[in-house]
Amino acid sequence: MKYADLSSEELNALQQELEAEYKKVKEQKLNLNMSRGKPSPTQLQISFPILDALSSGDGLISEDGTDCTNYGNIDGIKEARRLMAEMIGTDPEYVLVMGNSSLNIMFDQVARGFTHGFMENTPWSKLDKVKFLCPVPGYDRHFMVTEHFGVEMINIPMTPEGPDMDMVEKLVSEDPAVKGMWCIPKYSNPTGYVFSDATLKRLASLKPAAPDFRIFFDNAYCVHDLYENAPELPDILALCRECGNPDIVFEFTSTSKISFPGGGIAAVAASEDNLEDIKSHLKFQTIGHDKINQLRHVRYFKDGNGIKEHMKKHADFIRPKFEKVLEILSEELDGLGIGEWTDPKGGYFISFDSTMHCADRIYELCKEAGVTLTNVGATYPYGKDPDNSNLRIAPTFPTIEELETATKLFALAVKLASVESLLK
Amino acid sequence: MKYADLSSEELNALQQELEAEYKKVKEQKLNLNMSRGKPSPTQLQISFPILDALSSGDGLISEDGTDCTNYGNIDGIKEARRLMAEMIGTDPEYVLVMGNSSLNIMFDQVARGFTHGFMENTPWSKLDKVKFLCPVPGYDRHFMVTEHFGVEMINIPMTPEGPDMDMVEKLVSEDPAVKGMWCIPKYSNPTGYVFSDATLKRLASLKPAAPDFRIFFDNAYCVHDLYENAPELPDILALCRECGNPDIVFEFTSTSKISFPGGGIAAVAASEDNLEDIKSHLKFQTIGHDKINQLRHVRYFKDGNGIKEHMKKHADFIRPKFEKVLEILSEELDGLGIGEWTDPKGGYFISFDSTMHCADRIYELCKEAGVTLTNVGATYPYGKDPDNSNLRIAPTFPTIEELETATKLFALAVKLASVESLLK
Repeated sequence: MKYADLSSEELNALQQELEAEYKKVKEQKLNLNMSRGKPSPTQLQISFPILDALSSGDGLISEDGTDCTNYGNIDGIKEARRLMAEMIGTDPEYVLVMGNSSLNIMFDQVARGFTHGFMENTPWSKLDKVKFLCPVPGYDRHFMVTEHFGVEMINIPMTPEGPDMDMVEKLVSEDPAVKGMWCIPKYSNPTGYVFSDATLKRLASLKPAAPDFRIFFDNAYCVHDLYENAPELPDILALCRECGNPDIVFEFTSTSKISFPGGGIAAVAASEDNLEDIKSHLKFQTIGHDKINQLRHVRYFKDGNGIKEHMKKHADFIRPKFEKVLEILSEELDGLGIGEWTDPKGGYFISFDSTMHCADRIYELCKEAGVTLTNVGATYPYGKDPDNSNLRIAPTFPTIEELETATKLFALAVKLASVESLLK
Repeated sequence: MKYADLSSEELNALQQELEAEYKKVKEQKLNLNMSRGKPSPTQLQISFPILDALSSGDGLISEDGTDCTNYGNIDGIKEARRLMAEMIGTDPEYVLVMGNSSLNIMFDQVARGFTHGFMENTPWSKLDKVKFLCPVPGYDRHFMVTEHFGVEMINIPMTPEGPDMDMVEKLVSEDPAVKGMWCIPKYSNPTGYVFSDATLKRLASLKPAAPDFRIFFDNAYCVHDLYENAPELPDILALCRECGNPDIVFEFTSTSKISFPGGGIAAVAASEDNLEDIKSHLKFQTIGHDKINQLRHVRYFKDGNGIKEHMKKHADFIRPKFEKVLEILSEELDGLGIGEWTDPKGGYFISFDSTMHCADRIYELCKEAGVTLTNVGATYPYGKDPDNSNLRIAPTFPTIEELETATKLFALAVKLASVESLLK
């Protein structure tokens, strides 16, 4: 029965019951964490053999003749560009392989927009106002980058098909101050939604008022499928070319959740002109990235299929975790009308929305009982969830047993906070 | 006998003789390169065992408990901070270990000056004019960074004791637009000069007109000694603290020419307040640098002494190269009054000055006969050597035999160009 349909008496009785239950859980003095979107130490062991993929006895010259132990090669070595291209389904000539962090590439790209501008356009630092479209809920670190540069961020509601494209089209075509848009097209953080073909087509076909508008297309979870027959996104670069917008997109990816978070390799993919523009700045910033680690990754994975095979091991490890959380949420909360949550087929997160708009209270109740969730508001620009509804659940770091305990507490907190809300 | 004391007839005869000699060399169709300040492939084999220092069977948890295979730790792991601190002779708490490139750290630091400013000071992008002092001859990549951001660069003459400190003191104390100064304190690129204690003291005691003036102290060659009993620089951070200027310096270093160029680790050292300021930006730019490579370096080198021992192998390898170049220059050019050159006890370069101000012609003659030198002017801001005199010789990349041929051609080109100059 829906909580909203309960009488005050029933709600009061339910509150007492839930409080007693909550008190008991509190006595367990839990110390669990469902906030961290990262692999667990055990999961990472899957990738340990990568450390053995390169040793002093191996040849360290790349296919294109680059000595990987010496300076140079700002594009990344040829075989690493091919590997990353196969991973995201594009052509190697559109890919630059860089250091260990795609976030760093994105930050630098925003910074370049401000200090120098893209392709001869006015540097954003010279403009009164720079705006970015931000699908919400979304990835906190994206929003923090643009906030750091003083960008005005506009919330765009997410749907299971991707961002609200009517709103995107209107804003992008009418306002030349709109210079960018964040997005995670596959298994979006935190919803797990995958952009539909129609959404991608509309993105590629945008008619921006600003010539230097760019889609920051963070393909972070391109191969992070939990199940067979996973969705495959079309090559966004090709799609943009076909739609007459070759330069509208910067695509980013990394092996952070494939090999090692922080110890992987990252890449940017874009049109030839965009890559030239990027390199016209990058050549002053560095002589080249870590080609030894690039080579190590290629020697281990060999090609796109090697990466896919490796990702199956990760999937086998984390699939039961996702399923456990979803199973408990369903058992505990189905039919109560107090929460909605997503059912991701990949990525690293589950998104939960409190129907009673009491996300902050749910967070607090979890916290007091020893379970840390991602901060409320983190999934929105400026850390402000206007509806006080969204909570991000990260199932990968805890063990299954910990997840079970934590998710049960979470569900209890949702119930208790919702009852409190209804009684206000 | 000095060329300047020769009569026109003698010069004409000499020119004919040198031209004949030059013609013969040209017929050899050489293809040599003395422009590359990087180790040779054979030299790099010294560092190959580093690749075996970490494997899947090793513990990958750092001393401070950080899992090096997972996200996090923006300071760099504790043992890597200690290693880099020992290398430059400072305390680990003042050191952040980052990615593979100190140039990248310097670039980002200049970029932060422009986009956000240091410690609440006005971002440089909001100022009409930003100036940097540039000891000359100096490192082209330094100058290219500041040129890229539109900084006005002021040439400061280098002396064997370091930059002309009278000029530095005057400019820094009088002009609030002077926001920074590049320098390489030990085995400066390209002169090989080492800043004297007096110079360092005066640097640390500067009284800048601008509160956000910083010395960009690129300690690239801190352990790159060719001989025993090498100079040891005092800890510049401590010196600046003692002189009441704790925040005036950013020190940079890397293992690029210790382990692998492009495959090493880099660091910045600065006061606590500066590091906090750096991290207040860095935390938006990345989740952390490659800790696996940091750990690999510590496992191999162990400590500062390990690095010094390793550097002896590099020194043994490149010392004969430096000595060969210096020997030939001396044999061929001593007493002719047409060139002066430095006699570095470490680092990667020898600096040559054409007394007749015909560096461009020397470059051209070398080029035409198949020997590539660093571009004339590269050692000056904007690529412009006002005296047309400086040439940078990089002895490390070619073999000794190649160096011998190339240096002999170089000396011949100096003679021929000088005679031409005198006959004009």
